Amino acid sequence: MRFDGRKAEELRPVKISRGYIKNAEGSVFIEMGDTKVICTATVEEKVPPFLKGSSQGWITAEYAMLPRATQVRTIRESAKGRITGRTHEIQRLIGRSLRSVVDLSKMGERTIYIDCDVIQADGGTRTTSITGSFIALVDALTKLKKDHKWKELPILDWLAATSVGKVNGELLLDLCYQEDSQAEVDMNVVMTGSGKFVEIQGTAESEPFSREEMAQMLKLAEKGIGQLVRTQRKILLSDLCLSDS
Amino acid sequence: MRFDGRKAEELRPVKISRGYIKNAEGSVFIEMGDTKVICTATVEEKVPPFLKGSSQGWITAEYAMLPRATQVRTIRESAKGRITGRTHEIQRLIGRSLRSVVDLSKMGERTIYIDCDVIQADGGTRTTSITGSFIALVDALTKLKKDHKWKELPILDWLAATSVGKVNGELLLDLCYQEDSQAEVDMNVVMTGSGKFVEIQGTAESEPFSREEMAQMLKLAEKGIGQLVRTQRKILLSDLCLSDS
Amino acid sequence: MRFDGRKAEELRPVKISRGYIKNAEGSVFIEMGDTKVICTATVEEKVPPFLKGSSQGWITAEYAMLPRATQVRTIRESAKGRITGRTHEIQRLIGRSLRSVVDLSKMGERTIYIDCDVIQADGGTRTTSITGSFIALVDALTKLKKDHKWKELPILDWLAATSVGKVNGELLLDLCYQEDSQAEVDMNVVMTGSGKFVEIQGTAESEPFSREEMAQMLKLAEKGIGQLVRTQRKILLSDLCLSDS
Amino acid sequence: MRFDGRKAEELRPVKISRGYIKNAEGSVFIEMGDTKVICTATVEEKVPPFLKGSSQGWITAEYAMLPRATQVRTIRESAKGRITGRTHEIQRLIGRSLRSVVDLSKMGERTIYIDCDVIQADGGTRTTSITGSFIALVDALTKLKKDHKWKELPILDWLAATSVGKVNGELLLDLCYQEDSQAEVDMNVVMTGSGKFVEIQGTAESEPFSREEMAQMLKLAEKGIGQLVRTQRKILLSDLCLSDS
Amino acid sequence: MRFDGRKAEELRPVKISRGYIKNAEGSVFIEMGDTKVICTATVEEKVPPFLKGSSQGWITAEYAMLPRATQVRTIRESAKGRITGRTHEIQRLIGRSLRSVVDLSKMGERTIYIDCDVIQADGGTRTTSITGSFIALVDALTKLKKDHKWKELPILDWLAATSVGKVNGELLLDLCYQEDSQAEVDMNVVMTGSGKFVEIQGTAESEPFSREEMAQMLKLAEKGIGQLVRTQRKILLSDLCLSDS
Amino acid sequence: MRFDGRKAEELRPVKISRGYIKNAEGSVFIEMGDTKVICTATVEEKVPPFLKGSSQGWITAEYAMLPRATQVRTIRESAKGRITGRTHEIQRLIGRSLRSVVDLSKMGERTIYIDCDVIQADGGTRTTSITGSFIALVDALTKLKKDHKWKELPILDWLAATSVGKVNGELLLDLCYQEDSQAEVDMNVVMTGSGKFVEIQGTAESEPFSREEMAQMLKLAEKGIGQLVRTQRKILLSDLCLSDS
Repeated sequence: MRFDGRKAEELRPVKISRGYIKNAEGSVFIEMGDTKVICTATVEEKVPPFLKGSSQGWITAEYAMLPRATQVRTIRESAKGRITGRTHEIQRLIGRSLRSVVDLSKMGERTIYIDCDVIQADGGTRTTSITGSFIALVDALTKLKKDHKWKELPILDWLAATSVGKVNGELLLDLCYQEDSQAEVDMNVVMTGSGKFVEIQGTAESEPFSREEMAQMLKLAEKGIGQLVRTQRKILLSDLCLSDS
Repeated sequence: MRFDGRKAEELRPVKISRGYIKNAEGSVFIEMGDTKVICTATVEEKVPPFLKGSSQGWITAEYAMLPRATQVRTIRESAKGRITGRTHEIQRLIGRSLRSVVDLSKMGERTIYIDCDVIQADGGTRTTSITGSFIALVDALTKLKKDHKWKELPILDWLAATSVGKVNGELLLDLCYQEDSQAEVDMNVVMTGSGKFVEIQGTAESEPFSREEMAQMLKLAEKGIGQLVRTQRKILLSDLCLSDS
Repeated sequence: MRFDGRKAEELRPVKISRGYIKNAEGSVFIEMGDTKVICTATVEEKVPPFLKGSSQGWITAEYAMLPRATQVRTIRESAKGRITGRTHEIQRLIGRSLRSVVDLSKMGERTIYIDCDVIQADGGTRTTSITGSFIALVDALTKLKKDHKWKELPILDWLAATSVGKVNGELLLDLCYQEDSQAEVDMNVVMTGSGKFVEIQGTAESEPFSREEMAQMLKLAEKGIGQLVRTQRKILLSDLCLSDS
Repeated sequence: MRFDGRKAEELRPVKISRGYIKNAEGSVFIEMGDTKVICTATVEEKVPPFLKGSSQGWITAEYAMLPRATQVRTIRESAKGRITGRTHEIQRLIGRSLRSVVDLSKMGERTIYIDCDVIQADGGTRTTSITGSFIALVDALTKLKKDHKWKELPILDWLAATSVGKVNGELLLDLCYQEDSQAEVDMNVVMTGSGKFVEIQGTAESEPFSREEMAQMLKLAEKGIGQLVRTQRKILLSDLCLSDS
Repeated sequence: MRFDGRKAEELRPVKISRGYIKNAEGSVFIEMGDTKVICTATVEEKVPPFLKGSSQGWITAEYAMLPRATQVRTIRESAKGRITGRTHEIQRLIGRSLRSVVDLSKMGERTIYIDCDVIQADGGTRTTSITGSFIALVDALTKLKKDHKWKELPILDWLAATSVGKVNGELLLDLCYQEDSQAEVDMNVVMTGSGKFVEIQGTAESEPFSREEMAQMLKLAEKGIGQLVRTQRKILLSDLCLSDS
Repeated sequence: MRFDGRKAEELRPVKISRGYIKNAEGSVFIEMGDTKVICTATVEEKVPPFLKGSSQGWITAEYAMLPRATQVRTIRESAKGRITGRTHEIQRLIGRSLRSVVDLSKMGERTIYIDCDVIQADGGTRTTSITGSFIALVDALTKLKKDHKWKELPILDWLAATSVGKVNGELLLDLCYQEDSQAEVDMNVVMTGSGKFVEIQGTAESEPFSREEMAQMLKLAEKGIGQLVRTQRKILLSDLCLSDS
């Protein structure tokens, strides 16, 4: 039994509210237990310089935390005048993950900005951001589909993410902050709805791990992500027809 | 009749939710129509260098907007590497206003950080931040009062703020974004519960205004702020005993 | 009697020297008692991006202090690598005030940069900058008028500014540094020659103020600004024909 | 056959020169084919604030590339005034990896700075940096051991790193730049001499990968890292006694 | 005959006004023709970290130009967020030069900040800054002498500077901007009252120069600096007793 | 006898390796005793804005040191977020010196970037950078000559640099770090192969110097630079035909 009563392979309760910010083309308020993130998707009708004239689109992400999302107040990155290494890593991860399930060549020369702002942080903010952003992204693309009379959404697969880790020798799914801060191994996994890997980032925080443990952690992640994708489907499928195989 | 159906001297609907962020000493989610702000108050047991050894406390404020709070996405100040002039002005205004109704000499050598993060912007974000922050501040001070067994809260008066302006020749209370963007005169007013002025910032956006108009705008502001303070009282007075004269 | 011998409603001696910097299109050395500011106006034949193609002009201002303008040396903003919030506020105020009395649509697509550099600071540097900059601006526009054979100057009204405040319970005009640093209320007022308000920024430094006091302070400001505009007229009217009603 | 003549599971030629920079406590010039990196280890007799008084040591890393290490000249990060996200990610990875094989509690309160400067870049600069830095680190610790008469080196295991990837459908070990730039999947693996994982960072650049492919790539990495550790052993074991099991 | 009527070996008219800024410990307004600089000297009762506990003093300099000192307005370094290479060079030169004629070991552990702000620029701003700063520095040291009852000023020699150059094949003393901008060789020379060199910075702007030309330029500089020191003496010697050999 | 066994007028051993970095148009690894610098020359087919349309080329230089090039590790300028004054001075010096011996009007509208990265520092890094960069520059220009079938190299003369100084009263050539750090006078001299001066930067570190000493130092520099140019000739003349008079 975990300190919040969950079993080792149990996710925290998930809640996704769509249309949270009135002006954004797509927006979601996602809660994984006490971790709460606002994800918005903004469409801009231009692409970064390296794609000009390529007739291809782009997806990029930014991530931040409100100063008091954390137990101790953190200094704003705007006040520091620079973005930390951790933020850089996370926003690159979110952007890369989302791009892997979108057919950029069918988006036209436009950029979708994903903004993930953590309102409250209790572990797993980057994976929660990915799971939530996918919905905001689909909503923005659906809007583009309507505006531009695309025949289909340029979405190749579903996408969700979770963390797994080894805490006090036990392998656990979806770590909350207290577990994360004492984990021996910490792994973030991003997968598609069809069960393929998009990103695996495993780190031995205090002791290296074996190939065996690696395999078990991937299984745990697979289970959790499967459940998250089912939640995403329920929310989206009422008004959206993604290939559901 | 205004474009959203309000009368000239009518506030937008106000909604204040306390205890919005679990870790903060005080936190509020305030909505003035479509303007939505998270205000938190964080206690830190030290003061800025210029107050060391003064046995006096300090209150300071920071303000930011999520990138998609606005109709068109705004670039993050952390990405720009600097805080804009507008943000500087607003956070100085919020801090100064709150300090004016607190007896800093009775707070002990500690700082309260007020963070105002605009989730959705529809005009009046700075005045909404002040009205909401006052509640978050009172909650943080109430917690300090309990922890340190102070006899009373070091709060001297209630505090709220609103905007007034002249739009198409008519004087209006509590401008929304659409009104604000076409106003000839724009004025932000911060007042105490006892009806005194803390800040008046009036700007002729396109044409200078007369002393007469000035007087009328102050009256409008007074009316709106009176109503906001009554809302604050309802929310706070159940568990709090501020002098209610 | 004030500590420098002035009466409550008395300005400090004003002195304005035109043509102070040989290369600038307009330049003024203005002294209000011991406060001394160099104001220059520079014409540049382009406008900011948001005005391109609008056939409208722009006026913008920058403000700085020499390190030893103040009693204690202040660190240069170039050395800090950033402009302080106070500087931002002041340069926005100066620009906005000057724009309010110019018909930008008659300037052509060009920008006038106002630079206010405080050589010596003894209170009222922002209001002195506005009063002095107005003359530098008129000189630059007069030069443009000659070069482009405009029929008239695109100036709508005269413009000057002063501070008023409450010091030890007494309302005073044109605060010097010593008065300013102990003021209970501090108010900066910008007015036109025809007696209308362009900006009012009133701040309760230590105690909120009543509507009565507000009205009295505005009267004081009106008196001082009237006198400043008369000084401006004397200096300009020899070689310039502004509408003098 | 790969375009440089290697087999799929073949490393590029490795060359490690110790004592390359005369002043550094440890320094190495490492070449993996055309990728060339200078790694230095510097001992400083203090720790970051969060470790003060902990009687524990720290290891941190910085990484940079000379402007012309790359095919097209890259702008210096000092000229840009900030470190890119990519650099942040890499230096965090190097530091974390090295810390995982050192018993920090036996180092005393001191910091070892690892500097990895890429002289010439042809793919795999981050993994080459880790493999080279481990030797520089051991040399610096060996010097500390002599100076402080430690009984043993606080090194827990050997450490090396390599990249693996999927290029045109084929799984390859130790990608050079040309391969890396067209890889479908790119994975960096850091392992210990005893065959445990320290870091796994797998990214689907263009298409998600299966669990099967994942397992095969880890095997390839294991093979390459085994060979790198044997090279490290040869170089170090003449003057060093690491546990060689 | 030069374009402003001077002979090749003739300085521009020099004018030095002392006590220009009321608060500074030393301050000078120096004019060399149309080049005008405000130099202030500020005493601060602490030294940089590398001198703490050395019982030695320090002198450091900062240099800046008002935006419209130049023919075309230059962007403020505070707005750019960084100091240019040119400014860095100049302020290092001024500080180094002044330190060379002061016995720092007799100043006590305090720093004198020299601020040189160019109000109007017409060539030779760095050398004019040195000549003017020397007077401001002496005034600040004289004040310290009085306050601390030193027996003598810790000044070792007089100090002044000028530029020389080769323009259209002719060697000229004290170049104004028009000459400087077309010079083949440009040399700044700093010398003591006793005729020794403190700094020589000679640059072939468009063609290398011979040893012969070098010698002649130094002679010109010597002549000009001799005259500047005589001017300094006249100004200072009324109230100051420097060794006058 | 100097502490490293050299005579007063003796250079340290020089070693220049060409073609050190495979991708650069020109690249050199130069060693002057223990001072070691990588110099690369990169051709870019555009010029800075001020030269656009001038049909003239440009040469610019950047300079940096690896953190552990020095005895004590220096903080990276990228980590500080800004380039120091010393670096600015040096890169301006290198660029200016190289431009003085190139006929920019015959290079076409392109820029050559010179990058000097100090791998190990033992005094004279800026002069060593100039001597080495000249070779890298010639190699890049030779490549351009071939590619564009120029009739001749746009090189006007040879170029090398050295330092001279006064240490414990004795005049020395080519100071190493230990000598440099105790020098009374420090002078950097850049000269052409035909014996003309390009730059002279003499600084009295602790005591002003006479015209006599100046002349003797220039003679020493002339001797050393003559020898360096002979070394450059040997390296280049096999495959290059510079005018050899």
